[in-house]
Order: sequence, then C-alpha cells, then structure tokens
Amino acid sequence: PIYFVPLKIYRHNVSVYVCVLYRNAPPQSKFFSIKCSPNVHYKITPQARDRNADSYPLTPNAVLIVTMDAVSKTANDSKLSVRYFGEKTEALGDALLHLTAVEISLDVDADRDGIVEKNNPNKGSWKWGPNGHGAILLVNCDSETTNKKTLDSEVEEIRKVSDLQDMSKMILRTNGPAELPEGYKLTMHISQTTSENVRVFRPRTNNNAFWSLYSVTYELNFVPYLGGKTELEFFVEGLRFPDKDFDGLITINLSLLEPCGKGFPETPVFTDKVVFHISPWIMTPNTLKPVEVYVCSTDDNHSFLKSIRNLVEKCGYKLKICYEYMNRGDRWMQDELEFGYIDSPHHQFPVVLDSPRDGDLQDFPYESILGPDFGYVTRHALNEEVSSLDSFGNLEVSPPVTVNGKSYPLGRIIIGVAFPTATSGRNMTQVVQDFLWAQKVQAPIALYSDWLVVGHVDEFMTFVPAPDRKKFRLLLASPDAGYKVFKSLQNNGHGNAEMFSGLPEAISVNEILSDKKLQAGNRYVQNCIDWNRDVLKKELGLDDEDIIDLPILFQVLEEKKGARAVAYYPDMVNMIVLGDQLGIPKPFGPKVNGRCALETEVRSLLEPLGLKCTFIDDFAPYHKLLGEVHCGSNVLREASPFKWWNLEL
Amino acid sequence: PIYFVPLKIYRHNVSVYVCVLYRNAPPQSKFFSIKCSPNVHYKITPQARDRNADSYPLTPNAVLIVTMDAVSKTANDSKLSVRYFGEKTEALGDALLHLTAVEISLDVDADRDGIVEKNNPNKGSWKWGPNGHGAILLVNCDSETTNKKTLDSEVEEIRKVSDLQDMSKMILRTNGPAELPEGYKLTMHISQTTSENVRVFRPRTNNNAFWSLYSVTYELNFVPYLGGKTELEFFVEGLRFPDKDFDGLITINLSLLEPCGKGFPETPVFTDKVVFHISPWIMTPNTLKPVEVYVCSTDDNHSFLKSIRNLVEKCGYKLKICYEYMNRGDRWMQDELEFGYIDSPHHQFPVVLDSPRDGDLQDFPYESILGPDFGYVTRHALNEEVSSLDSFGNLEVSPPVTVNGKSYPLGRIIIGVAFPTATSGRNMTQVVQDFLWAQKVQAPIALYSDWLVVGHVDEFMTFVPAPDRKKFRLLLASPDAGYKVFKSLQNNGHGNAEMFSGLPEAISVNEILSDKKLQAGNRYVQNCIDWNRDVLKKELGLDDEDIIDLPILFQVLEEKKGARAVAYYPDMVNMIVLGDQLGIPKPFGPKVNGRCALETEVRSLLEPLGLKCTFIDDFAPYHKLLGEVHCGSNVLREASPFKWWNLEL
Repeated sequence: PIYFVPLKIYRHNVSVYVCVLYRNAPPQSKFFSIKCSPNVHYKITPQARDRNADSYPLTPNAVLIVTMDAVSKTANDSKLSVRYFGEKTEALGDALLHLTAVEISLDVDADRDGIVEKNNPNKGSWKWGPNGHGAILLVNCDSETTNKKTLDSEVEEIRKVSDLQDMSKMILRTNGPAELPEGYKLTMHISQTTSENVRVFRPRTNNNAFWSLYSVTYELNFVPYLGGKTELEFFVEGLRFPDKDFDGLITINLSLLEPCGKGFPETPVFTDKVVFHISPWIMTPNTLKPVEVYVCSTDDNHSFLKSIRNLVEKCGYKLKICYEYMNRGDRWMQDELEFGYIDSPHHQFPVVLDSPRDGDLQDFPYESILGPDFGYVTRHALNEEVSSLDSFGNLEVSPPVTVNGKSYPLGRIIIGVAFPTATSGRNMTQVVQDFLWAQKVQAPIALYSDWLVVGHVDEFMTFVPAPDRKKFRLLLASPDAGYKVFKSLQNNGHGNAEMFSGLPEAISVNEILSDKKLQAGNRYVQNCIDWNRDVLKKELGLDDEDIIDLPILFQVLEEKKGARAVAYYPDMVNMIVLGDQLGIPKPFGPKVNGRCALETEVRSLLEPLGLKCTFIDDFAPYHKLLGEVHCGSNVLREASPFKWWNLEL
Repeated sequence: PIYFVPLKIYRHNVSVYVCVLYRNAPPQSKFFSIKCSPNVHYKITPQARDRNADSYPLTPNAVLIVTMDAVSKTANDSKLSVRYFGEKTEALGDALLHLTAVEISLDVDADRDGIVEKNNPNKGSWKWGPNGHGAILLVNCDSETTNKKTLDSEVEEIRKVSDLQDMSKMILRTNGPAELPEGYKLTMHISQTTSENVRVFRPRTNNNAFWSLYSVTYELNFVPYLGGKTELEFFVEGLRFPDKDFDGLITINLSLLEPCGKGFPETPVFTDKVVFHISPWIMTPNTLKPVEVYVCSTDDNHSFLKSIRNLVEKCGYKLKICYEYMNRGDRWMQDELEFGYIDSPHHQFPVVLDSPRDGDLQDFPYESILGPDFGYVTRHALNEEVSSLDSFGNLEVSPPVTVNGKSYPLGRIIIGVAFPTATSGRNMTQVVQDFLWAQKVQAPIALYSDWLVVGHVDEFMTFVPAPDRKKFRLLLASPDAGYKVFKSLQNNGHGNAEMFSGLPEAISVNEILSDKKLQAGNRYVQNCIDWNRDVLKKELGLDDEDIIDLPILFQVLEEKKGARAVAYYPDMVNMIVLGDQLGIPKPFGPKVNGRCALETEVRSLLEPLGLKCTFIDDFAPYHKLLGEVHCGSNVLREASPFKWWNLEL
C-alpha cells in the first residue's frame, strides 16, 4: 500500500521538507529504507545506525530532512520513497513523496540602500540603528495633482506614474516549473489592523499606461504564479503616521496554499514575511539650511513685508507670500502650521503639519502647500477646546544634542504646557501631543509656557547657529539682563533717554526703573524662565555657556484666570533665523549717541558668533497684537543629513 | 544697594545653589568678591583667576555653585554675599543670598528588595532586568471585604489596614528647620493621564484607627512640612493594568514651591520624581504546582465529579465546586475565566481574568473568586460580537522556553485565531488580545484554531511536565497517530473490535478504517495541526523530540461557514495536568485483551516520562456537548519563582 504523504514546499536555499517517519509507517514497521531521484538529498535525525547497508531502525522520533539542489522543471518531477520493513526482509509498505521545488521570495529594501535586494535574511523584522535592518515606507500624504486636490492615500487608484516614487517597491521573486502542482496557489495577506495602515499596488496586467488599484485588504488576494524565473513588482504606500495606537510597523505576508481536498479550505505550507517601518514626521531646527520663507500679506504690514523681502533676498532664499484672500487677516503664519519632512532610502519630501488652531489661515496648508512631493498631515482635538497653546509657535525643535551620552542627532521637539504643579491651566491638546511623542525620533520635552498670555515657547526661547561648542546657542529672554541694561543706562546718565521714542508709548529709563509693579512682574517672569532654563539644561545637556540671555522685559497682566505675561517691548528672542542672518524684532529701546542701547547689547552678544542682526519694525502690525517676527513667519528648511532609521532607540 | 537674588533650594547630598553672577551685577562691575557663613561653600566656574587674593574678574558666563555641608537649623540661617567692584577698589554693590538648606527626598523601593531605601539615585527611572531598577506597583484589584464586594481600587477610602499590603509604600523624607522660609510649600503632583492610573493615600492626621482617602488627582495636593528630621508615609495603589494605551509606567512628583509675591503663582524650585511600573497580569503554565482545582456541579455530572474529586484528593490539592445556583448549568469552567497573578517585591496575589464570553457562569469570577488577596480583572468586547474563540479554553501559556537565545522564563501566552490567509473567520476579540500583548512578559503566540467547531487551542494541544530535555513535552492531537493505532489493530486481527463498545455509537475498527470521508477529514485536520506544530516549533524553539503525538481522530462537519472539525472520540489531549498526575478523557477505544488500545498507546507514550494517567469518563456530560475534562475544569497554580521585573525586555 502507498501511504498518503502530503507534499510540502519550504524555502531555504532550495527547498527543505521535514517528515516525521513514524507517523505514516505501516503497523509493525521496525526498519525503513529510502530511495530518491538524483537531485533529491536526505538526512535522518537523530542519526540512525543502519541495520545493514540499506535500512535503518524506525524510532518514534525519527525525522527525515529532505532537500533538493535545484528547482523543479515540472510539477512533481522529483520523488522520494520510504520502504518500511518488519523483523523480516519482506516489505510492509511504501510511502511516496512527490516533490516540487520552487523558490519563492517576497523582497524589499531591507538593507536600506534604495535597491530591493534578493531574499535578505533580515527582511522579516525591523531594527533601529546603523547596524539595523528593515524596509521603510512613506505615508503617501502628498497630492500628485494641484487642482481638485486629494491626498494620494485617499485616492482609489494611481493616476500618475510619478506617484510610484512615493511608494516602496516590493518584488515577488519566484523560480520553478511553468505551473505549480494542481490546486496550489500564492496569496498575499495582511492583518485587519494593518489594512488600515497600508495599501499594496501592482501594475495592470494589460499594457495600459495607467495603474489600477491592487489593494491588499483583510481579504484574500491571490497572486499569479507566472512560472520559470520571474519577478513581479508591487508598490506599497503607508496610510497613517505612527501614533499613540500605532507603532509604525507593517507586516506583509505571502503564502503558498496547499489544497486539502474538496470541501476543505486550503492551508499554507510556506509563508514569507516582510516588515516595513513608516517614516516618522520629522521637524527641522533653526540650524538647518532654509529653503523658503512664508509670510502673510495684510492691509497693514506693507513695510514689514518689505523688510522681510529684503532680508530673504539678501540671503538668496525663496519667499512665499500668503495673500489676504487666503489669510483673511490672520497673520500668524508660525501658528497655523509646522514644516517637517518624511524620509526613506528611495525618496524624501517635506510634510506640513496643520495645527488644530484653525484660525482664518486654516485653509492655507491644504490649499496652498499640499501638492506634488509636498505632504500634508493634521490632527483634530477630541472633545476639548483648542487653546492658544495649540498654535505651533508653541512647537519648536532643538538642534542635535547629546545628553548624558544619549544622542539626539535630529534634536528634540519642544512644546509648552501648563506648570506641572498648576491646579488648572492650558495645555497643548492631547491628540497633537500623542502624535508628536509617537514619532519617537525627536523625543519631546515639555516646557512651561502657560505663564504667558499667548503661551508659546517661542516667546522666551530660540536657537541660533554658532561656530563653536555644540554648534548652536540657546537664546533665552531675560528680564534680569533687561534690567541690567536699563540700570547701566541710568548709571551712565541716560536716565531720561526714552524707550518707544516718538511713539505714544514713550517712557524714560528712570520711569521704567521706578515702576515697582513692573519689577515684581519681571521677578516672577524670570522665575518662570529659570524653571524652563533648568529643564532645557537637563533635557538638552546644556551648560550655562551654551545659553545667552537676551535683555527683554515683560509685563504681567491681571487676567480672570490669574496673572499672565506679555512682552513689554518687542520680544527680540522671537526672531527669524536664516543661516547666520537673524531678523530680530526692533525693540525701540532708549538711544545713546543715536543708537538703540538694546540693539547694541544684543549685537554685542550675537555678533561674536558670526551672526548678522537685522532689526525689523514689527511694532504696529505684530507686537501690538501680542506677536513678533517669528510668530508672523515660517521657514521651510532642508531635511537633516542624518537618516532617522540610523537612530539607536 | 542690595540686589535681589531669589533663594533657591536644590537637593544633592546636601544642597546646591547655582547663580549666574553676571545677571544681578550692578552696571560697570568688573570684579567680585565673596563672603559666606562657615557652613557654606562655593565654587566659581569657569575657574576664575583671581585679581588678588580676594576678588575675581566678572565674566558674562561666570557661574557660582554654592553648597552647604549641613541642613539649616532655622530658615535663612546661612548667608553668602557677592560684592561687585568696577576698575577701582570701591564696591559698586552687594548681592546677598539668604540660604536655607533642606533635605527633601521622595522615596520608593527602587532596588526591589521590599524595603523603601533612602534617595536611590535611580528612583526617577525604570529599567528591566536583574541589573535594572525602579519601583513596582500592584493594581489594587482584590476586595478586602467578602460581602457587598467592590474592587478595592473602586472604593473611596481604605477600610481595612490589610488593604495597605496591596499598595506600595512611598516615604517623603525631610530634614531641615522647624519651618520652611515664609511662603514655601511642598506639593505632590501627577499628570492628568497618570491620575487615571494611580491613587496615593496617606494616614489621617488624627489618631483614628481607620485610614481616609488621600487621593492625588490632577489637582494640587499640598503636603505638610513637619520640620526636623521626619518621614511621612504614603501608600500608592495602581488602578489599571498595562494596556494598548498605557505602558504601565507611573510618575509621581514632589515639588518645593517658592512664593513669587502677591498676585503671582508660586513656582517650583526643586522637584523630586519617582517612577513605578505596574505589575503585569501573569499566567501560570501546567508545569507550575497546582493549588486548587475548580469544577462545576450539574444535574448530570455526578460520576464525573466523583472521578475528579478522587484524583484531586489523591494529589492532595484543594477542590472548589461551583454549584448549580451559580453555574446555571454552564459547565465550562475553563472557558469563563483564566487564573493568573500579580507580583511585587512586597506582595503577590492571584488575579482572575474574566472572559468576555459571559455564559451562564458569568457571575462566578466576581461573586465567588474575587476576595481578600484574590484579584479580578475583565475586558469587554467593543462593538463586536463575542465568538467561541473568546472562551479561555482558547487561552493557554507555555512553560519557560528559550528561543534562538531569547529567554521567556515565564513562558509565552498562546491564543487561537483565524487563519492568516482566511477570507473571513472568527478571532479572539481585539480588546482581550490587546490586553494580553500589553502585559509584555509572556509575549503571545497566535495559533490557528478556527478550523475547529468550538475553536479552542486546548482541543489540539497541551503541555505536560517531563524530567528531561526542556522539562516539558508539548502534546499534540494527531489523526496520523490515531490511524496508526487503528491500522495496527486491523493488522493484528482486531478489525471487529468495537469503539464506543456498549454505547449506541459503537463502531468497529474495520468500519472506521473504511470511512473515506472520515479519512479525508482527518488529512485536513492533520494539515491544520501541522501548521500549528510548525508555528509552535518556531516560536517556542522546540525540536520534534519535544513533541508527542497523541492518537486522536476528528470528524469534519459541514457548517454554513465551511467545514469545521470536532473530536471523533473523547479528545485525550484536553486533559487536566496536576503535577505528574494527568486526568485524561476516557477514549472508549477498541479493547484488546480487555484493555483499551488507545489508553494503552497513550500510557506507553506518557508513562516513560514519569506521568500517571487516570482516564476519566466525560462522555455524556462533556464530550457529547463538544468539550472534555480540560474544558470542564480550571486549576489555580502557584506563582512562578521567576520575578517578572528581572526579565530582559
């Protein structure tokens, strides 16, 4: 009798089949012998001592390992038979294996060099770091079309071949007979959860110039087996950024299904697996090279716009103006959006994060920025009111730092929240915080910004490039440093010199220094900034020498919900940083020998670092509305040369 | 003039105060000198070269580091003054520091020895492993009361001192003057998110025998400063197990607040931080020592119950019977609940996980198991129907294994799901899967169990202890092994021997072997089990020698949703494992010389491992209702001696 033995196909270099010999043996079998086609090889474990040259004792744990040294030319072209014996030499029966060797490999760029290599042994897992491995996927969050825009990830089919560049290539390589044994099928499958995060496309089988959707959902997707030595190309796109409930990992499986007879489902005999990590959204610190400056045109900022245009043209960067039909008078370009980018070995493009703030500028990121190779992502607040702390003047990122030996080559995200000890207070909405934390590569730091009326971290801090030390300085607003300038003026006989000279707000140095309430408020403000200074020193690994205190006074207003601060004169730390060129709010400080003492002090602090200061008058159209140059502008910057997947997490 | 310098208190061994000298210097200051009380010490950085013995040049980055070698006796009892000079020797002004040194330390058992040590340098972070650190918290999920039960974590106040043993002790150690300087306060605070996961209690200040709630919510909680050298005890309880949206880490902060003058909020000058990790819920494999066996009494299982009682009494374990008023005829004790435990250095107790299955046994876990030092946790399915795969016969755990060098000393959780390639199928509900994955210490493995009508992994696999190899064997149901027994009987002239002899279902060996449909079904079943065998070998690092195939046949039923299998005769792998004693469903196999051939075969496979087989008749009350001994019982086991926090994750 021929006992049934199921055919199985495994992939190794060629194929390996494992068979528990005892299971299919006829009763009373004590020994067995083996015969096979010349291209078939076998091994018996545990190593069996042979009774004679041709047969081996049958033990309950005897396992036969079968390999083939080449793929099959036709289905079932190779055979292996096991002959079972009792104590006597007469055969009790044979078990016959029909063997078909097929090479099957689902391949991705697991070594991150931009090329899909063949059967990388690490393709089924993902590891961070320069010695890491695992393929990378982009969220297809740009729009190939510029009119009637939709995010590409929301479009049912691929309309332009250029869209394929935003996707990761995946290749199914097969090598074997013209056809698989009857009833065998290839199928691609992903989990239901994964199907919300990824789509897989493949070319139409007819030679149409367009691409039609091949979406791998939770359903079975049979993949054709083309026979011989073939490569089938797929394109994979990410649908969602990493978030609180999604670690960014995507697994795609390819199985060879075996028929089990009529009325029974097929069962997989071999599964290959690839893993992708979706690129996080990455912010760009002030130390990266600018590409384009964004600013609003309003009916009252003509001369401000001219100053910005001069500065940007001098530096040789592009300028993008958002006109009134779009901004509807909302000038806070910093607050409505944050520029970042996504990156993979094969492609990279900028992505704008749209703030849940949604002022009158709310349509600008989607309508005017989203486009080919310029992505868009947003988050909406859940069941909570959006506060001023949700504006992205309250979202910054540090230059690269190393903290107690731990390196952050992409810097760390900085946000402002309520004080940890506060009974109540405003916070950045949780969904945005969750999104930022989930990106992982720029581990966020929470500062205390709720002490300010507007409540943005860019009101008291910024980073500028520097030639020495950590290649940057942290600039902090400092009332102490401000009072020092004013006291020095008084001591040197300039007590009558006027702040805001020529403006209705004009006030003398002596008057400022005699205002006890202003002084008390600034002591409080200095305390608040000092707390942030301590946090920044600790979390960014800074020394006092890495920090420069800029002379800025605040005034504390009595609000319903307690005392909160605004800048007393234009807040110079709220500057635009374009390489070594700084566009600083003009402070309108007291003049000594025709020169503003505050500007002189700031120049003396920054120019030794090779920085060039341009003071820009933003008094009427920005400062009086509680913002400054930085609040009114935004800068698209080049991506960091550091690749996020090389991080050691 | 005396310039204002805020008092600051930092903690190191004693106290360290850092002062930016330049900020508060009078204008034109070029040099400074320092005087201080004898217990005050200072250092200037960067190291200043002195102009003469007494004074130093004032540079913009000069920082003064002040320490004290003992805590203060009274507030502001120590002083340090900075005298500033210009080019001449006449002083321009003094800055005076009023210093109060206080030791403040919020302490926990960060070294995991059951004792709250003093100011562990690692208390503010958490690290896995034998060289790790960080305190541990239990979810207070038991109930100190047995009537009118509520989870302790849902009770507003502590009613029994014994409840404190379920909590982690936290001590605030302070050492300083009788009173803090005026306006200074201590406050404990946690984030809003954390407040959903933890509560902190402290004793009532009057000498009441009871404890009242001291709940640290998102609100400010001022903590009294008692003066001198004091220890204030707190008790911390966890409220939630780790889950998809909660990594199990809890941070508690204690801050010293400084007054900022009338009308301004206080600001923290020093914050101490402790971190806890909540104990995961841990399952107990068959290889752990049993404590108590749970089984239902129904109107039709009297003789089954007697067999179980005999077996349990022989082994010397406890037996708990769930009577009909509670089980309402639902006999599937395995399916309604799973026993596990939570563990910390100071305390450990069992916790029952209540299945979302919610059959007629649904009240049993809460009503009859929850109690003092016996916790309770459950998860409810979200917007999906509960399926048979949600029963906990479909939730098992392996003994300790090592896989490719990675060790799982607590074993790995095993659940059954739909086939990865299936177009549709039943799964364990996502919230339970999420809960199991989030526990982290027993990384789950998903098997394919949807090929069974009932769909539980315990229908085709179990683990038994063994003296050799990995200290256990995996037992798998095997139709191939079943057919081998029947063919052997036929070959030896027992073809007319009857299965189910004396029962209406009686059928001869010859009849069974001639049933082609049964044979086709069992080929399919063997394929399904072989797939699981491959997964188990890979994920548990097993060799074929670690697996024993038990002779069990299935039959495949045509259901609306496709072909699914049930055991053809009592499914012997569905056994109860009590140390080396096995309670195995009596298979009613064909008899040879008065002995059941199937029992004989199973004994010959298991007795060499030192296991004792008791075959229990479960035919009418269990097998015919599609379950067996294991489905109808549950075993509370001792906790593993391995401590989960010593895992290297």
